Amino acid sequence: MVEATFYAVVPAGGAGTRLWPLSRAGDPKFLLDLTGSGRTLLQATWDRLDPISDGVLVVTGTRHAAAVGAQLAGLAGEDLLVEPSPRDSMAAIGLAAAVLAHRHPDDDVVIGSFAADHVITEQAAFTTAVHAAVEVARQDLVVTIGIEADHPSTAFGYVEMADELDMPGLPAPAYAVRAFTEKPDETTAAEYLATGRYRWNAGMYVMRAAVLLRHLQRFQPTMHAGLLEIAAAWDGPDRAVTVDRVWPTLTKIAIDHAISEPLSAEGGIAVVPAVLGWSDVGDWRSLAELTPGRADGVHVLGADGLVRALGSDGALVVPASSRTVVVLGVPDAVVVDTPDALLVSTRDHAQEVKKVVDALAADGATDLL
Amino acid sequence: MVEATFYAVVPAGGAGTRLWPLSRAGDPKFLLDLTGSGRTLLQATWDRLDPISDGVLVVTGTRHAAAVGAQLAGLAGEDLLVEPSPRDSMAAIGLAAAVLAHRHPDDDVVIGSFAADHVITEQAAFTTAVHAAVEVARQDLVVTIGIEADHPSTAFGYVEMADELDMPGLPAPAYAVRAFTEKPDETTAAEYLATGRYRWNAGMYVMRAAVLLRHLQRFQPTMHAGLLEIAAAWDGPDRAVTVDRVWPTLTKIAIDHAISEPLSAEGGIAVVPAVLGWSDVGDWRSLAELTPGRADGVHVLGADGLVRALGSDGALVVPASSRTVVVLGVPDAVVVDTPDALLVSTRDHAQEVKKVVDALAADGATDLL
Repeated sequence: MVEATFYAVVPAGGAGTRLWPLSRAGDPKFLLDLTGSGRTLLQATWDRLDPISDGVLVVTGTRHAAAVGAQLAGLAGEDLLVEPSPRDSMAAIGLAAAVLAHRHPDDDVVIGSFAADHVITEQAAFTTAVHAAVEVARQDLVVTIGIEADHPSTAFGYVEMADELDMPGLPAPAYAVRAFTEKPDETTAAEYLATGRYRWNAGMYVMRAAVLLRHLQRFQPTMHAGLLEIAAAWDGPDRAVTVDRVWPTLTKIAIDHAISEPLSAEGGIAVVPAVLGWSDVGDWRSLAELTPGRADGVHVLGADGLVRALGSDGALVVPASSRTVVVLGVPDAVVVDTPDALLVSTRDHAQEVKKVVDALAADGATDLL
Repeated sequence: MVEATFYAVVPAGGAGTRLWPLSRAGDPKFLLDLTGSGRTLLQATWDRLDPISDGVLVVTGTRHAAAVGAQLAGLAGEDLLVEPSPRDSMAAIGLAAAVLAHRHPDDDVVIGSFAADHVITEQAAFTTAVHAAVEVARQDLVVTIGIEADHPSTAFGYVEMADELDMPGLPAPAYAVRAFTEKPDETTAAEYLATGRYRWNAGMYVMRAAVLLRHLQRFQPTMHAGLLEIAAAWDGPDRAVTVDRVWPTLTKIAIDHAISEPLSAEGGIAVVPAVLGWSDVGDWRSLAELTPGRADGVHVLGADGLVRALGSDGALVVPASSRTVVVLGVPDAVVVDTPDALLVSTRDHAQEVKKVVDALAADGATDLL
């Protein structure tokens, strides 16, 4: 247990478009068991956070609130915050911070935000990093956990570390942040990696709720005022009317742009680098890497016995209908078999799945989305 | 109409294993519409033969007799010959020859054998070749129609032509046959092609029924006697008991081995070469070549609207369940989507589909065969 009142905040949103046809708008990535562990990504996130926090808040949309509640038996009703419409991560995390600050006026609450649809295999390292981040956050810094970049990915933003903070006794070292950077091109990503100073930014932020709200007041004052108004009404009879009035006026902005980038320029951000076995399970390629291979070189997510393969080393097969799937001579194939839609591709084309979904949407094939 | 009593004999057997999972033991290739024409291969064979013959006989097994009858409205009941068990092509064609000879003791019947599961696009050339073959057959030769070899295939046997026959007035020239050869290796096939003297042997044989039976008597006397006994009983009350007794004793042998090879050594075979737009639709590669491509380079056999493709030039997709199929970045893919089994492969692996079916059989997955 960390040495402060620490709440984990889990924004549960995003369809996971690049995992179509398994992930759908109505059955998004965080509600799926993508590791074959028997637990969905959301449940695994809960399992990771519940033992190391004083409480877990989940922020999700109206469409998925019931499913989230059903998957998380331990989640108290008051800790499921339902957004009437998606307004990006700053509104979601800001709402949680404002509600917690309002509920605990005398406590000095520290919050940490953690995506609902990422995989972390190194629980001990994660716990240590969070403990360190909470201690640093007590010093009024916004702290991000920096993911070890094991390849020059162009799919993630990076955080650049500067000098180590002079804070003896931390369970893990923390560093000042020089800057956050957007997703780089390949050359730039390789340069980042070579310096040893860059980590991936996975949106894990730890900070005092009061500190977050103070920065929000400076950088996004209108949003700050709106969120305080909503938070004041949240646990009372006027929640619905207040939310309906104010929520749609909130600026749609990511916390990275709203807080992290301007604050890093002021030196207000720290980073705790960590090796977490992390994956954002962002596409079929990364899912293939997460899924153990069989003797025949094929990675099966689902009922193993349904899949037969020959000469298809490195293929990922997801037999999510009850049919037999045979893959013959297609190394690195990606075959995702669902009751109403089938995807046949390869790992190298994982990023292009979004194009397919966009084309289906453009054609009005909403039943497949 | 040809100038003799000419019966077409269509042996309808063979599962078409390399077209799994579309072609199954219970729903074999000849019963399927593999060209998108609205007619099955068997029906198209009928359509081709009915106008140029005095009758069509179909020889099939007990398992498919009802389906054959249902597909061929014009087929008289007595012209559907049902084998109690498969005993290869010599027994099937020999049975038809013996039954026809028995039914028409005073006619000099010419028969031609034509597979039930091949495609021929050039009907006029086919008709001309058959007319020529029937005329040559009247001279007591066994005549094969030699398919133009447009590539050095290793999947077919070849027939080697010698000198042109001196038969003025034939609608198409005929040649003596020097030899039949088994499926060659690639080098040999290329050498065959370079000579210009080789044609593919598609098992189309035209000959007087009496001539066939005479050769059978010499080369396979026991089978000859058995078939005559069955034929004598066929249209009477003792058919069942005679067939049950004699049929299982017939040697399992192909007509190529039983008659063509020994007879060609004696100079008793002629060939009428022809350019027929022929395909044996033997595997997914040849089916892909038969199926027209769309603007996106994908060949769809079935409901076009179910298939979406990107970067998959030359792919063959068979959407035989009602599901949407997306192929992304897999050129020359073969995707065959049926309600209980899915095949994902490429054209280059078409020959290996049989391995998969053999493995399923070895595992006792009979419901999928």
